[in-house]
Amino acid sequence: MQRVSLLTDVRRTNDEIAAENHALLRSVAKLTINLMSAPGAGKTTVLESTILRLAQQYRLAVIEGDLQTSIDSERILALGVPAHQITTGTVCHLDARMVRKAITEFPRQRVDLLFIENVGNLVCPAEFNLGEDVRVMVYSVVEGVEKPKKYPLMFYKADAVLLNKIDLIPYAGVQLAELRKNVIEVNPRAVIFPISCRTGEGVEAWTQWLTERITGGVA
Amino acid sequence: MQRVSLLTDVRRTNDEIAAENHALLRSVAKLTINLMSAPGAGKTTVLESTILRLAQQYRLAVIEGDLQTSIDSERILALGVPAHQITTGTVCHLDARMVRKAITEFPRQRVDLLFIENVGNLVCPAEFNLGEDVRVMVYSVVEGVEKPKKYPLMFYKADAVLLNKIDLIPYAGVQLAELRKNVIEVNPRAVIFPISCRTGEGVEAWTQWLTERITGGVA
Repeated sequence: MQRVSLLTDVRRTNDEIAAENHALLRSVAKLTINLMSAPGAGKTTVLESTILRLAQQYRLAVIEGDLQTSIDSERILALGVPAHQITTGTVCHLDARMVRKAITEFPRQRVDLLFIENVGNLVCPAEFNLGEDVRVMVYSVVEGVEKPKKYPLMFYKADAVLLNKIDLIPYAGVQLAELRKNVIEVNPRAVIFPISCRTGEGVEAWTQWLTERITGGVA
Repeated sequence: MQRVSLLTDVRRTNDEIAAENHALLRSVAKLTINLMSAPGAGKTTVLESTILRLAQQYRLAVIEGDLQTSIDSERILALGVPAHQITTGTVCHLDARMVRKAITEFPRQRVDLLFIENVGNLVCPAEFNLGEDVRVMVYSVVEGVEKPKKYPLMFYKADAVLLNKIDLIPYAGVQLAELRKNVIEVNPRAVIFPISCRTGEGVEAWTQWLTERITGGVA
């Protein structure tokens, strides 16, 4: 019982810090996105595709959360976009405290769009508010159609779900219609974008949705 | 500081229960395997392929760990193999206490091979011993070549790594040699099996390795 109450307290504190982060983030970026997915679903590749389409018009920045290595930050930096690394060690998700520390260190000038790329994990990141404006989830269609039912929380919390790697559908034996149905069943609010970063299919619709939210404000 | 020491205590208790489980599991199964992976890497499909090859010769059973739903247990039961469901709710991994409870309830007669299919998560399951004899990890090659460096713990702890979905290599742009190299760099002890449950490629080598461990004992 004591353990439960302590965890509850830790949770509450995260939400308090997240609420403060939200105000701080608004002074740092017009729009902040918490980008979540299982490992290997393609978060960093989605960022690369998005950056290539938006970097000429908008000021972008990325906070990268990883257990180990700065491989992802280096991929972002290679595109000329500022990236700040949070190395979580053994912690399987970002929390509001880590993001708070990152905000105070980075970025130094205001940007239009700040991505926070969470640790690759389909479970725990969804439990921790970071203070973001929008939660976006990347899901690899190769992971199968039934995952929204098996891992409902992240699907439920996402404002937008990118169904990535649709170029592999013919080889992976996945029914896109069934996957969409399962996503909608868990979360009727979510906007769904089937995309392929390899072929570019669907990326325009996603970046269009993003730019509307940068220019129009979200709340 | 208090939080750390409490967590350490929780860890120690898990290891204590896991040690007791190990003795209990030996009375239940000749060989117990803790099967871990990220969501959608193909754990249940690997189980199906393995069952189809081994069920005639060996008595098998499966303990299924899932956040929600009994979709996976139903797939195993459909093959005529006893399956016991552990529903973890919001807990993103199995722990020794959950497995202990499952052992007391299931299976009723001794089997040759017991699989414990962990919750789909590339991070936390690797931190919790369940009392298993052998740890096997399934990794989908579609998730990319750099994940062993980014999520080293599970790769490090695995006795065998199944590199699954190799039939998608031509379409996913993944270099198998580079992936193997990255696995070995993190864990030179691991046996690596490139497999495709779709085409059956490599499955024979994996089940051969398994049967040697059933008949020969592990420890």
